[in-house]
Amino acid sequence: MTDEKHHADYSSFGNATDKKEVLQQVVDSYEALVYEQSNWVCNLGNASSLVWHAYHSLKVPVNWAGFYVVDPKDPSQLILAPFQGKVACQTIKIGKGVCGTAAEKLETQLVRDVNKFPGHIACDGETNSEIVVPIVFEGKVRGVLDIDCLVLNGFDEDDQKLLEALVEKISATCEW
Amino acid sequence: MTDEKHHADYSSFGNATDKKEVLQQVVDSYEALVYEQSNWVCNLGNASSLVWHAYHSLKVPVNWAGFYVVDPKDPSQLILAPFQGKVACQTIKIGKGVCGTAAEKLETQLVRDVNKFPGHIACDGETNSEIVVPIVFEGKVRGVLDIDCLVLNGFDEDDQKLLEALVEKISATCEW
Repeated sequence: MTDEKHHADYSSFGNATDKKEVLQQVVDSYEALVYEQSNWVCNLGNASSLVWHAYHSLKVPVNWAGFYVVDPKDPSQLILAPFQGKVACQTIKIGKGVCGTAAEKLETQLVRDVNKFPGHIACDGETNSEIVVPIVFEGKVRGVLDIDCLVLNGFDEDDQKLLEALVEKISATCEW
Repeated sequence: MTDEKHHADYSSFGNATDKKEVLQQVVDSYEALVYEQSNWVCNLGNASSLVWHAYHSLKVPVNWAGFYVVDPKDPSQLILAPFQGKVACQTIKIGKGVCGTAAEKLETQLVRDVNKFPGHIACDGETNSEIVVPIVFEGKVRGVLDIDCLVLNGFDEDDQKLLEALVEKISATCEW
């Protein structure tokens, strides 16, 4: 091992306990990482990893963190994109479930109890709360950031604000 | 929770301790999951998740499991594709490091000690062993499956054989 900074070090959030500080670090690290890189698969992969490790450093039991994008073969549905966590549903119809609703309405869905969300699609029966932020570029939905949590009320308005800031950077730095 | 099978359940390997059995289950699960789905981003995401959870169920300290593909903008390099683990290097020149060597030679690289591999590229300074299997379709390299382990000698010929079987299915089931 040497003293140089490895890419993996971006996943370290130390013992930070302030959620807003940790999520701001995710936004800043994403921006540093994607400097001169616009490949969306590459950038969404590292973004998923940043989000996953940030919530785990905060001891928030996130069980899935990643992306769906509009399916290039069928724009009426979303298709699985880079993520961290267990195996996931491959496709989701736009308008269906939490992800599909965010994609249709172009509005973040902050769901404190997924069991109360009409038409919730369970890729993992252990998920209890969820936040989904739509990725919008030039007025059109390109995909969604989706984060699932094992407990109820896993996310609040602070998460929403900072994840929306992250997604705004994602939208602006990837070629869609 | 209901009795139906969720996608996340594919990530459960129970208390299996037989490596060959667990890795064969990865191959079989991959095949079941990609039935009628040829989107490579989607399929490589779920494949990464299967591999990650399989090794963790076996208590093998895998710290990164995922893919690099040939960069569509610059075929002299690989670019980061779906993975599980910490933030990773975005691009790797073909011919450089363990991934680049596998991609250049079209041969699996089973590296029991990465510190002895000439020109090893450390995305994570904690990695000690690595296996990289090239994805070849119609005679050309399309990408690599890359798995890193925290300990020396993390992988052997049994891993190689079963991961090559997985990659053969990946090659045949994705549109490149």
